[in-house]
Amino acid sequence: MTDHAATSVSEPRTGVWFIGARGSVATTAVAGCAAVAAGLEPPTGLLTQAPEFAAAELPALSSLVFGGHDLDGSPLFKRAEELAEQGVLPHRLPAAVAGELAAADARIRPGGPLPGDPRGDEELIEAFRADLADFVRTERLARAVVVNVASTEPVPDPDAPRLPASSLYAAAALRAGCGYLNFTPSAGLHHPALRADAERSGLPHAGRDGKTGQTLLRAALAPMFRQRALDVRAWSGANLLGGGDGAALADPAAAAAKNTGKARVLRENLGTVPQGQVRIDDVPALGDWKTAWDHIAFDGFLGTRMVLQTIWQGCDSALAAPLVLDLARLVARAHQAGISGPLPQLGFYFKDPDGGPAALAEQYAALLDFAAALGAAR
Amino acid sequence: MTDHAATSVSEPRTGVWFIGARGSVATTAVAGCAAVAAGLEPPTGLLTQAPEFAAAELPALSSLVFGGHDLDGSPLFKRAEELAEQGVLPHRLPAAVAGELAAADARIRPGGPLPGDPRGDEELIEAFRADLADFVRTERLARAVVVNVASTEPVPDPDAPRLPASSLYAAAALRAGCGYLNFTPSAGLHHPALRADAERSGLPHAGRDGKTGQTLLRAALAPMFRQRALDVRAWSGANLLGGGDGAALADPAAAAAKNTGKARVLRENLGTVPQGQVRIDDVPALGDWKTAWDHIAFDGFLGTRMVLQTIWQGCDSALAAPLVLDLARLVARAHQAGISGPLPQLGFYFKDPDGGPAALAEQYAALLDFAAALGAAR
Amino acid sequence: MTDHAATSVSEPRTGVWFIGARGSVATTAVAGCAAVAAGLEPPTGLLTQAPEFAAAELPALSSLVFGGHDLDGSPLFKRAEELAEQGVLPHRLPAAVAGELAAADARIRPGGPLPGDPRGDEELIEAFRADLADFVRTERLARAVVVNVASTEPVPDPDAPRLPASSLYAAAALRAGCGYLNFTPSAGLHHPALRADAERSGLPHAGRDGKTGQTLLRAALAPMFRQRALDVRAWSGANLLGGGDGAALADPAAAAAKNTGKARVLRENLGTVPQGQVRIDDVPALGDWKTAWDHIAFDGFLGTRMVLQTIWQGCDSALAAPLVLDLARLVARAHQAGISGPLPQLGFYFKDPDGGPAALAEQYAALLDFAAALGAAR
Amino acid sequence: MTDHAATSVSEPRTGVWFIGARGSVATTAVAGCAAVAAGLEPPTGLLTQAPEFAAAELPALSSLVFGGHDLDGSPLFKRAEELAEQGVLPHRLPAAVAGELAAADARIRPGGPLPGDPRGDEELIEAFRADLADFVRTERLARAVVVNVASTEPVPDPDAPRLPASSLYAAAALRAGCGYLNFTPSAGLHHPALRADAERSGLPHAGRDGKTGQTLLRAALAPMFRQRALDVRAWSGANLLGGGDGAALADPAAAAAKNTGKARVLRENLGTVPQGQVRIDDVPALGDWKTAWDHIAFDGFLGTRMVLQTIWQGCDSALAAPLVLDLARLVARAHQAGISGPLPQLGFYFKDPDGGPAALAEQYAALLDFAAALGAAR
Repeated sequence: MTDHAATSVSEPRTGVWFIGARGSVATTAVAGCAAVAAGLEPPTGLLTQAPEFAAAELPALSSLVFGGHDLDGSPLFKRAEELAEQGVLPHRLPAAVAGELAAADARIRPGGPLPGDPRGDEELIEAFRADLADFVRTERLARAVVVNVASTEPVPDPDAPRLPASSLYAAAALRAGCGYLNFTPSAGLHHPALRADAERSGLPHAGRDGKTGQTLLRAALAPMFRQRALDVRAWSGANLLGGGDGAALADPAAAAAKNTGKARVLRENLGTVPQGQVRIDDVPALGDWKTAWDHIAFDGFLGTRMVLQTIWQGCDSALAAPLVLDLARLVARAHQAGISGPLPQLGFYFKDPDGGPAALAEQYAALLDFAAALGAAR
Repeated sequence: MTDHAATSVSEPRTGVWFIGARGSVATTAVAGCAAVAAGLEPPTGLLTQAPEFAAAELPALSSLVFGGHDLDGSPLFKRAEELAEQGVLPHRLPAAVAGELAAADARIRPGGPLPGDPRGDEELIEAFRADLADFVRTERLARAVVVNVASTEPVPDPDAPRLPASSLYAAAALRAGCGYLNFTPSAGLHHPALRADAERSGLPHAGRDGKTGQTLLRAALAPMFRQRALDVRAWSGANLLGGGDGAALADPAAAAAKNTGKARVLRENLGTVPQGQVRIDDVPALGDWKTAWDHIAFDGFLGTRMVLQTIWQGCDSALAAPLVLDLARLVARAHQAGISGPLPQLGFYFKDPDGGPAALAEQYAALLDFAAALGAAR
Repeated sequence: MTDHAATSVSEPRTGVWFIGARGSVATTAVAGCAAVAAGLEPPTGLLTQAPEFAAAELPALSSLVFGGHDLDGSPLFKRAEELAEQGVLPHRLPAAVAGELAAADARIRPGGPLPGDPRGDEELIEAFRADLADFVRTERLARAVVVNVASTEPVPDPDAPRLPASSLYAAAALRAGCGYLNFTPSAGLHHPALRADAERSGLPHAGRDGKTGQTLLRAALAPMFRQRALDVRAWSGANLLGGGDGAALADPAAAAAKNTGKARVLRENLGTVPQGQVRIDDVPALGDWKTAWDHIAFDGFLGTRMVLQTIWQGCDSALAAPLVLDLARLVARAHQAGISGPLPQLGFYFKDPDGGPAALAEQYAALLDFAAALGAAR
Repeated sequence: MTDHAATSVSEPRTGVWFIGARGSVATTAVAGCAAVAAGLEPPTGLLTQAPEFAAAELPALSSLVFGGHDLDGSPLFKRAEELAEQGVLPHRLPAAVAGELAAADARIRPGGPLPGDPRGDEELIEAFRADLADFVRTERLARAVVVNVASTEPVPDPDAPRLPASSLYAAAALRAGCGYLNFTPSAGLHHPALRADAERSGLPHAGRDGKTGQTLLRAALAPMFRQRALDVRAWSGANLLGGGDGAALADPAAAAAKNTGKARVLRENLGTVPQGQVRIDDVPALGDWKTAWDHIAFDGFLGTRMVLQTIWQGCDSALAAPLVLDLARLVARAHQAGISGPLPQLGFYFKDPDGGPAALAEQYAALLDFAAALGAAR
């Protein structure tokens, strides 16, 4: 696998604007994109570098330009070194891509609102829009995609007078004419207040909540039980994770947002709702490493009781970052091809997609079809 | 789900002839078929009772007539009680289907060859053929399917002067004009000496080696890794099982036959051969219950090391029996519809099928297509 | 192992009075005691039948007489059949010990208070005491032990005007001159209002919260980490259980009572409090079967990150019942020997004992010392 | 915890001579000893740095001088960097202790015999003895301990004309007046041909086969089953490991040597030999990381079937190295105190010790007693 569409003088540049630009996922995506583009690392996990996508005319990795919003101020290089210390990034990588990290760092603008921020929703949206417009103009980008990789917000109160932050950013993306991706379960563009604007915008968008580990596994396994006519009685899960995500999801309201997507995967794939819950526990000692245990109690022929258990030990940022790069390339290309609205064809990547099939294999087939359609566009 | 094609006075009767007719799988199939046909148990695990197969015009469960060969002489009812003692069958089931067990029991003929049997291959094939012909005639069957559920044989020596027992039975099936199913990794109809006869016979057949537990799981999971461009470095497995299967597979030669199919599933689904072995250990204390542990070491983005482990605790006979019933119905219907030769459309059921796709989801789709084709036949 | 002190005409009879007498634990204890005493089953799990206890002069299993309180009215035989259906009891056992079950059944009195019960605390205690006195007199018992195996109560509000039910029963035990055992985390005799009475009573008592599965394992494993100077950073646990216990512990207040004991075992054995929580989920499909997953993240030499995971799949009642029988025999014998007050020597059996060592091996040694002391008494 | 006996001008220097001095365990021990002695790392895993050993007058870590034999010639610093790359050593450690690594490196002598080596046993023993004598003299050591951490040898053929290499080194240790430790299952000093010499030598020695992971766990868990009178029916295990150890143990003869110790731990702790085997598979992708899965099928009260499974994911060298340092200090101190012969008090560290109790807790108590005795000596 190589970078199919090596950038050239004339290749248009594509912007990727992260909400949460100094977080683990964004840092890993920026560092990893540079490393793979430079041939320092193989494209493991980057599906869009596979031969199946060679003809889709996606923007080259080397043509991606990164920027974003963040409330935090710590330098990307320092974040990358912390990730290397934890084993998320190879130890020599931060130094090897220090230039790319510094360039992205310089393009990160302060996000908001912080508690006590006097600005109203409209003022914030406009400020974010201006940051985006500035990014596109300064970097001479053909287009940009806004990608939400910030911490999970609690499920918003429908009667709240103000929009949640994720929706402010999403509104800014629409105004700035950017494609939009929501890799978290937060409201973002799905807030009812943005529906009309989203429809009018003519922009492509996709979400919600990246399917990186436990739910990926569930989307692969649940169809097996249905196809074999096995009767899943209970599907229980425990998640242990540290890092920022662990702390955010220790808030039951945030966990509830996350679990909606997880439950949907089972319901749609099994055709029933089995007993069992998913628990998320913050274990700071695990850092960016996540362990998910699933216990599936099912009945076989003549009611025989059987059990499948799975234990997934993965690195959250390393699972998410290549999906984010895949998605940014696909949405940018869709934008270029004039495709607008929700993209159910990208359900392969999401826990809670905008339609499309629920089984992983069918989602993969839909994705390949989409790649073929992109290749045929224009 | 109900028995779609409830039998009636005029419904033709279909024979199912088990090689290994007093074993756990055959006993569970006979008892379970009776229980489901009578509405005593739901059709869990019996895919052919699902709505997707309603139009395929498969023979009704109540129209199946069981017989077979076995070297052992212990009554089916006693075997069923032992299985109930182990929790494989519900406790009241043997008594509830005692009539059906006794009827099948009376149709079981001594198999062979036992050590020291003076009969030559030809003589044995002819004796088995006569048993089959007698079964079809006496029971006034429209047709019969021979199903190998005997203990796994070692990989045959190609220079051996005699055919392995599984191939003698397969040859008899051809001569008697019966469809043939090989649910084990033994040679059966795949022996080179039978190739020409099989092709000439005009009969449908399918095999080898039922995909009941660990390999079923591998066929569901391995595509996920490839679809996500994750790099599987090692896939190791340990199997603990008691019962006859555990003892048979404690023989390294028999285990080698089994592992060929398991390795094929990984190779074809991953596109590479990862490190790692599959071990099979005989643990008599587990009886018919099987525990399979899989450890999958894979690399994600930027070479991050991750691990998935699965633990499958299943009851071997309860997993196999409904697949055997499914297959017998499908092959009988194919026979009726004039379909002959190997059936790659049934790869969903086998570790080592005669062609067709390798991923479970695609095998399932191929099976549904086959069901539709059967429904359209004649 | 045999019933060391086979009962004879002259052997005194010892009463065992269960609070929660129709629950799974009590039913299993009554049925199992009869089965082992009659030689129908081996004494697996019954430590007091081991040679180490032969000289302790414990009351023979055949001399135990069972009764109790329960709010529920379903017959013990029916409960035993349900347990056999779930595989907790051998299938033929309920019929084989139907006489003993019926005898115990006839001695069960209605418990209390039900919601709306007009009786005050004093009236209830007196009613329970009268039931106990009647039991001792009618059955001509040398003495009786009251054993709480009822559902876990929430942690009591210290300002509540009334005693929790478990403490009402404990107070009645004191008044009736009975030894007392609390196999649950409920307040029981540990309620501050009962402290003075307990001290004055001259009766032996022990508790709280039987150490049957996950915590037993923790008490065996945690010392290993400390002895090897390994640094346990996080110890997380997930429990899946159905049955009454699952439903009771789905109440966070009841779970909190349970988790106090679990946390204590780690704290005292490790000398530190690691990160991590214990979750308890009600999964009715599992019935009396409990699965506990523990994930222990620890650092080794030079800070190397390592992980131990354990999965315990046990039957709650079958784990608890022999411990309850052991404890009843030991406390009855202590009573006979004139030993009074809390028995830290029984810490081997409890999550939250009244003192004594924390490591399982030392608790076992303390128990053997106690057995020796009992053998030497009088 | 601190280095209790900080070295001073007058402290005698103690030699630690590794057989397999360039292997992972020895490299980790040398680098780790330097790091802990310098305060760069906490003494996690080093039991002899715990307060319980403060009075035992063990040689200080800073007084240990490392040398050894190895067939391999790659520099220790390079080995340390490879281990850091795999995450066994902290990334900055090799550079931080480069001086200590270089010093040890310079003291490593070529081992033997290589295939085709013309020297006889006597000649080899004498050459190794001379290396040891030279080490002691040149480094002005008070005494030295020889520690076998080389790859596991196959079980020696009793009729073989020559001694296995491990026994040649052990014979040299005796002649050079050094204490001896066998951290592997190889024959070493246990070869019958060395028995008389060992007895005459007046030197302390201990072995065999360090108890680092799966067997450590078994020694902690098996007593729990016996203490609870639970009936272990089968105890099966699977080990996946890469590195040199994985490759060596892929040889069934070497694995057999290892499994002897593992089986002994179960037999002595349970009092019975359960069904089940231990499998060891070489998985190079895992490097120095080892995964061990254990499946324990046991019966509880009334024959209820239950299962405990454990998964241990550890780093072999990081588990072994601190034990090796502990043992070297203890044996050197025993030597100083005039204690000779086998040391069953060190059974805490070994799979196959020279006597002493089998349960981990009792082995730990015996070790503390030994530490107290050492403190009281001279």
